Amino acid sequence: MQTIPNGSVTSPQGFLAGAAYAGLKTAAEGQRDVGILFSEAPCCIAGVFTTNKFRAPPVHWCQERVAQGQAQALVVNSGNANAGTGVGTGQQGYRNTAQMAALAADVLGLTARDVLVASTGVIGVPLPMHKLHEGIKSIHLSRESGHEFVRAIITTDTFPKEIAVAVSLAGGRGVIGGAAKGAGMIHPNMATMLSFVTTDLAVEPGFLQRALRTAADLSFNMITVDGDTSTNDTLLVMANGQAGNEPVREGTPDAAAFQEALNYVCIYLAKCVARDGEGATKLIEVRVQGAASERDARLAARTVAGSMLVKAAVYGNDPNWGRIAMAAGRSGAELEQEKVDIFIGDVCLMRDGQPQDYDTEAARLAIGQQEVLLKLDLHLGSGKATAWGCDLTQEYVRLNAEYTT
Amino acid sequence: MQTIPNGSVTSPQGFLAGAAYAGLKTAAEGQRDVGILFSEAPCCIAGVFTTNKFRAPPVHWCQERVAQGQAQALVVNSGNANAGTGVGTGQQGYRNTAQMAALAADVLGLTARDVLVASTGVIGVPLPMHKLHEGIKSIHLSRESGHEFVRAIITTDTFPKEIAVAVSLAGGRGVIGGAAKGAGMIHPNMATMLSFVTTDLAVEPGFLQRALRTAADLSFNMITVDGDTSTNDTLLVMANGQAGNEPVREGTPDAAAFQEALNYVCIYLAKCVARDGEGATKLIEVRVQGAASERDARLAARTVAGSMLVKAAVYGNDPNWGRIAMAAGRSGAELEQEKVDIFIGDVCLMRDGQPQDYDTEAARLAIGQQEVLLKLDLHLGSGKATAWGCDLTQEYVRLNAEYTT
Repeated sequence: MQTIPNGSVTSPQGFLAGAAYAGLKTAAEGQRDVGILFSEAPCCIAGVFTTNKFRAPPVHWCQERVAQGQAQALVVNSGNANAGTGVGTGQQGYRNTAQMAALAADVLGLTARDVLVASTGVIGVPLPMHKLHEGIKSIHLSRESGHEFVRAIITTDTFPKEIAVAVSLAGGRGVIGGAAKGAGMIHPNMATMLSFVTTDLAVEPGFLQRALRTAADLSFNMITVDGDTSTNDTLLVMANGQAGNEPVREGTPDAAAFQEALNYVCIYLAKCVARDGEGATKLIEVRVQGAASERDARLAARTVAGSMLVKAAVYGNDPNWGRIAMAAGRSGAELEQEKVDIFIGDVCLMRDGQPQDYDTEAARLAIGQQEVLLKLDLHLGSGKATAWGCDLTQEYVRLNAEYTT
Repeated sequence: MQTIPNGSVTSPQGFLAGAAYAGLKTAAEGQRDVGILFSEAPCCIAGVFTTNKFRAPPVHWCQERVAQGQAQALVVNSGNANAGTGVGTGQQGYRNTAQMAALAADVLGLTARDVLVASTGVIGVPLPMHKLHEGIKSIHLSRESGHEFVRAIITTDTFPKEIAVAVSLAGGRGVIGGAAKGAGMIHPNMATMLSFVTTDLAVEPGFLQRALRTAADLSFNMITVDGDTSTNDTLLVMANGQAGNEPVREGTPDAAAFQEALNYVCIYLAKCVARDGEGATKLIEVRVQGAASERDARLAARTVAGSMLVKAAVYGNDPNWGRIAMAAGRSGAELEQEKVDIFIGDVCLMRDGQPQDYDTEAARLAIGQQEVLLKLDLHLGSGKATAWGCDLTQEYVRLNAEYTT
């Protein structure tokens, strides 16, 4: 597996993209707010979606497309989430999503059922369909416009999140590309965000869905910014088979290689999302090992990464092992306090549940990094997991107190 | 039931209290850091404690005293939580707790087993036993010193939390008093805090424990400040029977009256704790009705009250129904979005899952109050619950980034 320099969702063969400005965001918020990702051939697709019961119409629409198993394009917009607008098939929100798919389908020579839809932005305001129509019509597709496409899904992100990797299988070489947007409302199940993965590899449909779920559980479901989960979280993968390989099947060496590359892409994007949490200045990585089960390790890692007090301590460069212990202790994971070791970087702050006389300077150096590593060993079993989060800053509060409905 | 003006934990008959400065806090943090609450007669006791697996030695000690069913005094300190110091009976943390009880017992003419212990403050630093000893010896007990006692448990609280109510039973008139400290790490199970309730009523032991659990579930388990749960949360009730009534027994009219008064005292104290969350400027009350079950109502109410995005919106005076809907949607409570109504105060923001054209001025007025009421009706059943929280401010972040281990 090899990272492709300057890679994007159009790095795999047969994918074109484009973006335009339809006026859904203010000009100050960004110059792109509608985008299309198009495959020259029909794609096998899979998806993982928000568990929020207030999920938005585009999420329902994509779930229907994933059930049908195939699509050929994706149309996205930012500036308006089309959420809280009526999710029933007869309601305005759902009708607008269907119409958005139809508008893109018209331009692309497809039917609406071939087109996936994702929206992000303010909630509860009907999509301005006329503006969207004009925007979609003005999109020019090209092989080079993957970087344009990602700008169309950005809201308060401070940088675009993109990657592509090349993977060599027995059946030939393929590419996996990915793009994501994050910022606020980022929390497991799903880590609130939009993320789109493309590949020119042919992949057997059932395996594609299982592989995506596995990758999501190691990546987007292990990040947290503020504990809130949005109504629009969507992770989609489109596999168009243009690499010409035999479809990747579960249980083969190719499947393992594909899974590894897919995990890599999703973890890379998820870490970008955590690092770019609203107001964040640091990425926090929490590694838990020795848990009684993987489930416990995941619980403990995510709870520590999401603790407001841990996040504030990291922001303040305070190696506060008490807050780390407290968060692990309330996580629901099995834990015996007299067995717990806690590290910041390589500095051991607690061993066997006892605070250590650690090197204060080394600890402050470790927590002063832009990427802060917190490690816990529970010494109960072999469960391990890694979660990512970001620090909690005054800027987060300012951003979210001033954002207006 | 009647509120007693200027009431405290020494309002019930037979309770004395006192406090002193032992030097565990800096002088700037407060002039009282050790306190004693003493009953002239042995008390029937009950307790509810933190579920954090990193619970501190004084929590273990109190659990043992509650198992024994009886105590006659309580010794408390602030400035040092005696947590992360070794909770095993042979370890320093536990030994120091036992010694703290013995020091108080010496002064009071009791045995250590008669003395409950609670500690709050920094974690991981051994209790300075010499200072504590000097402090405990210097405490003067009196009927009037309930207000002194509460000052000894305060850390970053901005005001003391105290109350007393008189309750008339068939068997005579009694008084229930209470004191609490809160501030940070406030979240259900237990809402992180110390709270002590006293009464001169005689109460049957089994009923006292069940009544306290019921009251805790309606009060301290329904408040949240930051989602974090401390290692030291303790709620204790001491009933000394000096009112001379027949012991209150479950299923009687007296039991109902006692429960009502106990609920009132605990809810009052819990709301004080939520209102005084670190950096908070407002109390948020979330009332959920129409849930499929009471459990669902509790989940939804607590999740909305604890959502960082809802809290930031309340701070910013933004009637952001989208965030309220999002939080309810991720709470785990059963929910059908096309049935949900959302109100801020009396202003309906969402009806049947549809955003309403509400009176913007009225909504901003409602969210601009010092006590902000958010109401949700899920229209699925008869489950209802109320939770309390506070807004999220830059000051919260500053306090918790600068607090140093």
